[in-house]
Amino acid sequence: MGEGILAGLRVVEISAFVAAPMAGATLASMGAEVFRVEQLGGGIDAARWPVHEGRSLYRAGLDQGKRSLAIDLRSERGQQLVTDLIIGGGPAGGIVLSNLGARGWMAYERLAEKRRDLIMVMITGSPDGGSAVDYTINAGVGFPWVTGPEGWGGPVNHVLPAWDVTTGVLAAAAVLAAERHRRLTGQGQLVQLALSDVAIAVAAHLGFLAEAKLVEEPRGRYGNDLYGTYARDFRTRDGGYVMVCALTARQWKSLGEATGLAGPFAAIEVMHGIDLRDEGERFRHRREISALIEPWVATRTLATVRDAFDGAGVLWGPYRTFKELVREDPSAADPFASPIDFSGFERVKAPPSPAIGANTQQLLETELGLGGSELAELREQGVIG
Amino acid sequence: MGEGILAGLRVVEISAFVAAPMAGATLASMGAEVFRVEQLGGGIDAARWPVHEGRSLYRAGLDQGKRSLAIDLRSERGQQLVTDLIIGGGPAGGIVLSNLGARGWMAYERLAEKRRDLIMVMITGSPDGGSAVDYTINAGVGFPWVTGPEGWGGPVNHVLPAWDVTTGVLAAAAVLAAERHRRLTGQGQLVQLALSDVAIAVAAHLGFLAEAKLVEEPRGRYGNDLYGTYARDFRTRDGGYVMVCALTARQWKSLGEATGLAGPFAAIEVMHGIDLRDEGERFRHRREISALIEPWVATRTLATVRDAFDGAGVLWGPYRTFKELVREDPSAADPFASPIDFSGFERVKAPPSPAIGANTQQLLETELGLGGSELAELREQGVIG
Repeated sequence: MGEGILAGLRVVEISAFVAAPMAGATLASMGAEVFRVEQLGGGIDAARWPVHEGRSLYRAGLDQGKRSLAIDLRSERGQQLVTDLIIGGGPAGGIVLSNLGARGWMAYERLAEKRRDLIMVMITGSPDGGSAVDYTINAGVGFPWVTGPEGWGGPVNHVLPAWDVTTGVLAAAAVLAAERHRRLTGQGQLVQLALSDVAIAVAAHLGFLAEAKLVEEPRGRYGNDLYGTYARDFRTRDGGYVMVCALTARQWKSLGEATGLAGPFAAIEVMHGIDLRDEGERFRHRREISALIEPWVATRTLATVRDAFDGAGVLWGPYRTFKELVREDPSAADPFASPIDFSGFERVKAPPSPAIGANTQQLLETELGLGGSELAELREQGVIG
Repeated sequence: MGEGILAGLRVVEISAFVAAPMAGATLASMGAEVFRVEQLGGGIDAARWPVHEGRSLYRAGLDQGKRSLAIDLRSERGQQLVTDLIIGGGPAGGIVLSNLGARGWMAYERLAEKRRDLIMVMITGSPDGGSAVDYTINAGVGFPWVTGPEGWGGPVNHVLPAWDVTTGVLAAAAVLAAERHRRLTGQGQLVQLALSDVAIAVAAHLGFLAEAKLVEEPRGRYGNDLYGTYARDFRTRDGGYVMVCALTARQWKSLGEATGLAGPFAAIEVMHGIDLRDEGERFRHRREISALIEPWVATRTLATVRDAFDGAGVLWGPYRTFKELVREDPSAADPFASPIDFSGFERVKAPPSPAIGANTQQLLETELGLGGSELAELREQGVIG
C-alpha cells in the first residue's frame, strides 16, 4: 500500500484468530504498513477453514494489504529480529499490535526499554487475562437469548463474530488515538482492551444494559421482527425473501402507498384508537400489520414487489446468500481495499494477500538492513524459512 | 470528559439511528469533546425504544459522554449557529460527523468555504446514497442464511445491529485518520463510508466472499456449531446452557481431560483413521464428538460442569440473559466509559448521558460567545428551546 491516508504509519502485528488481525487489516486498508509476523511453520490458525486448494481463505482475508513474515519466535535470535522490527520504523513506527499475550521478550516493559515511546496494543479475551473468545463471550452477553425464531427453546448464536470484528476495528482506532497522543506529547502507551469489555460497551451503547437494569420485563425474542419499531421479513410468491422496514413516519407512509394497504392500516388505527406513525405503536400492533402485508407479498413475485417498493420509496432489501451477493453485487465481487472513501486519496481495489512468510527476506533486508550472508545464516539456524 | 487520550479533539455530530451516534460515542469514550446537535423538538429517533419513565434508553446509551444541543436546524439562524460550531474549536476542531446527508447548508463544499481544513465524515446506507439500513443490508449480505437452527427454513436475522456498530467504530477510526493527515499536511477531507460497503469489507476479511467465489459448496447453516472447528452449546441437568469450544489442539486436550472422554475421542480417531487435533477433522466429526459430550453435560449441574471445565482449562462460557449479565458481572453493572485501557490515563466510569438539549445554552455561550440578550432572542425566535 503506502498510498492511503495512513501512509507512513508502521505497525508490527503478532496475532492469531480474528480481532488483532482485523485491527491490522483495518489499518492496512487505510494505507498503513502492517507487518504480520507468524511463527515459522505456521501459527495456531494458519490453516483455518474455509480452505481452497490448500490455502486458508479465512487467513487470506485477514491478511489483506499486509506483508507477512515467518520467523521462529521461540528462538532467541528470532525474538531479537522481531524486537528490532517493532522498535524500528522511525517516528511513525514503534507500534506493536497483538493478542498473543505480552510475556517474556514481548512484555511491554521489555520492549519499552528499547524504545521509550513504544505503543503496544494488546487484545485479550477477558480483562483478567482469562481465556475467552468471541463465542464464549457472546454466550454470556445476552444476545443468543433474543436472537432466532420466536418460541425457539435454546440460545441462538449469530454466525458473524461480531465482538471480534468490533474489537478489531476499535483496536485500530486505539492505535490512532495513541499515535496522536504520542505525536503531541512524545509519550508511548500500553493499550489494553478485552473482547468481553467491548461486548459490554456495545450492549451499553445500544441500551440493552440500561433496559436490563431498569425495565422489569426482560427483552423478548421476536424472531425477525425488529424491537420497538416495524420491520420484518416476508416471503414472495416465487420463494424470495424480503426485509421490509418502516422505521420512520415517512417510511410507514411509503409502505402503505406501495402495497395499497393504507386503508386497512388506518382501520387498525381506528380500531385501537392509536396513531401508527408512532413507531412504538407499530411494534405493539406488528402482528396485525404483518397479517396484511404477508398475503400481499406472498401473492407477488420478487420482481413485482421490488417495483412496487422502489416506486414508493419503501425501505426494504432482498435476502441474498453469500453466493448471490458476490454474483449480483459488483462491489462484493471486486471490493475496494477500504470501505472508506477519503476525498484526498484515490480509492484502490483490495490487494492480493501475501502467502504466509512471503515477505520475510525482503523485509529483513529493507527494514533491518540484513545482508545475504546473515540471511543465509538465519536460514541455516532455522530462524527463517 | 476532557481527561482521556483524545482530550482537545472536538467533533460536532448531527445524526440519527445508530452508526454515526456510535462513532461519536466511541470518540467521546476516549475523551474527545462531542457535541451532538439535535433538531429542536426531537429528532427522528429521540424517543426510540427501549423507553423507561419516558426516557429513551437507546438514545441515552448512544449519547454517553457527549454534550447535547437542541436547535431548530430548519431555520437559517439555527443553521448559522451550527455552522459556527462546526468550523470552530481551534486546530483540533472543524470536524463534523453525520449520517443525515450533506445537502444545502451542510454540504461539504459550503462548510469547507468557511473552514478550508474541515473534516466531514459522512455515513450513508449504500454508496449510491440510496436508503439502506443495517437490517436491509444484513438481509443482502448472506449471514441470515447461515444463522439460526440447522434445518430452519427462512432467514434468521441477528439482533445485534452489527453493521451499524462496526461502521460507527470504523467512522471513529476514520476521523482519527483524517485528523492525523490534517495535522501532518494541513489538509481537510471529505470522508464517506456506506454501511453496505462496511458489511462487504467485513465479509471479505472473514473469508466469506472468497469462499462464495471459489468453493463450490455453499456455506451451510450449522446452528450453534462453529464452522471449521469444534464449538457448540450444551444444556446442563439444571437447565443451564454452556458454550464449549475446542479451537486449538490444547483446548481439545483439555476438553477430553475435563470430561474423561479422551478415550472415546481416541476411539473416534481410530475408527476413521483421523487425528482430532486437526480442527477441520473435529468439524467433520462434530456430531460424533457432540454425541459424547451431550450426555456428559446433560447429567451434570452447571456448577459441576463449571468446576470440571475450569479445572482442566476448557475454553467455555455459560449463556446468560441480559438481566443475568448485569446482575452477575460487575463490569456490566457499572461499565467503564471506554473498554480501552490506556496506560497513561486513568480509567473512568461511564458518565451519565445528557438529556436532549441539556447543554444548548452553555455551549452557545462558551463556544460561540453568545450573551444573555442573544440567547433570549434565539429563544424568542424559537431557534432554541
